[in-house]
Amino acid sequence: MTNHNTSLFSSLLLLSLLALVSLASAHGTVSTYDLQKIKEEESYYRQKKVIDISHKYVPDLPSYASKKGLGDFLNLVGSIKNGSLVNLSTFKLSTHSGTHADAPGHFIDKLFDMGCDADSLDLRTLNGPVLVVDTPRDKNITAEVMRSLNIPRGVKRVLFRTSNTDKRLMHQKEFEPSYTAFTADGAEYLVQNTDIKLVGIDYLSVGINVRDDISKVHYALLGRKDVIPVEGLNLDNVVPGVYTVHCLPLRLVHGDGSPARCILFQS
Amino acid sequence: MTNHNTSLFSSLLLLSLLALVSLASAHGTVSTYDLQKIKEEESYYRQKKVIDISHKYVPDLPSYASKKGLGDFLNLVGSIKNGSLVNLSTFKLSTHSGTHADAPGHFIDKLFDMGCDADSLDLRTLNGPVLVVDTPRDKNITAEVMRSLNIPRGVKRVLFRTSNTDKRLMHQKEFEPSYTAFTADGAEYLVQNTDIKLVGIDYLSVGINVRDDISKVHYALLGRKDVIPVEGLNLDNVVPGVYTVHCLPLRLVHGDGSPARCILFQS
Repeated sequence: MTNHNTSLFSSLLLLSLLALVSLASAHGTVSTYDLQKIKEEESYYRQKKVIDISHKYVPDLPSYASKKGLGDFLNLVGSIKNGSLVNLSTFKLSTHSGTHADAPGHFIDKLFDMGCDADSLDLRTLNGPVLVVDTPRDKNITAEVMRSLNIPRGVKRVLFRTSNTDKRLMHQKEFEPSYTAFTADGAEYLVQNTDIKLVGIDYLSVGINVRDDISKVHYALLGRKDVIPVEGLNLDNVVPGVYTVHCLPLRLVHGDGSPARCILFQS
Repeated sequence: MTNHNTSLFSSLLLLSLLALVSLASAHGTVSTYDLQKIKEEESYYRQKKVIDISHKYVPDLPSYASKKGLGDFLNLVGSIKNGSLVNLSTFKLSTHSGTHADAPGHFIDKLFDMGCDADSLDLRTLNGPVLVVDTPRDKNITAEVMRSLNIPRGVKRVLFRTSNTDKRLMHQKEFEPSYTAFTADGAEYLVQNTDIKLVGIDYLSVGINVRDDISKVHYALLGRKDVIPVEGLNLDNVVPGVYTVHCLPLRLVHGDGSPARCILFQS
């Protein structure tokens, strides 16, 4: 064996030994590398504050254009007290109950027929960095207000915290028609002059309660197919700033929208 | 003014000028710092693969112990074709339909009365690093199988991919009683010897379909209050490894469980 070969042999032996040590320190199905990754991510998440921005489903949750709220949406059909093995309920909701996402098919029938349903909403839009902004308290979200907010290109998700939050409208059973939302020109400004794809609002509709405006706002946003209005958000405990949002509607095939659970992690 | 003072004064002047420049370059409600943060996080998310691990809600989705599947759960109550301003549906599901989370009150009535409902499930458990493991294909998840998987302490979330996925059971309308899941001693092993708090499984129950076992499995897991079984996961497109999971059930107050949208980001 030449010197060169001896040194190659020694190197290979060393490598094999290292591989063996690494295998021996692996934990069953989990490598030490994976375990380290898990532990690091665990501590990364532990240091971040999590904020629930979804409203609880309760009978008194307000419902669009109704005085009665959601009503009894949950029905305990199997009960341990009555001899069932388990407690088991059914629930019935509108696709636009409480905190929810609109699908393009909600207002645009052609897109409804094309399958633009709750299940088609883009997970990349529904998850990622988000900006929470306060809007001027005495105004709807007009083009002028949008201009003054001056949201730069590159910002894809914005939650608009309005006077709806101050007035605690989502905590009142009776629907409040004078809620704050986008005007037609505000929505038009958003699609023309920003990169916003997720539009969050703190009451039950992203468009003001004027028939012409509410349609135009939804047509402007939903007509783009890639813009997702998320309505009925709970922004009670959120200060303006940058967060990470995870907003996950159910995969309701043919659904014109869906209830969604939405949370923020502090960035 | 002494030399020292002059230098201090110059430094303050420079700092004030820098602050002014930084303000001037801010974009309306968004500081340049925040915009940078958003852009960095956007590119961080863009490079990660996202995997939907929730099943679509469709009439043929299997339903526990039923031959008929979910059936017609969605009802278009307002239709643009029939003159409505919008398409608007209601939907009715069991709290344990499709991909869903169990609340402690599902099997344990005392905890049900104490308010351990779907809304009480810990968001810290439902979001974070997760391990996906393959289980031996010819066995249920027994204590012996759990021992062989050897999942180290510190791992809080595990999705168990079993033969249910190979057999595509969640794609068959008729309920399959011989599905793979935990035996009583497997669940007992999990709570005694691991730190697992989120237990994911790829069919409709975390416990095997034997009355004694299915109860004992649920008592063992749900009795801890801090363990969340997530059932009916879609692991068709997932290979074993480390991911980040976001699994978000609806805030169904008094719900013994809730449908949940669950996704993975590749780590």
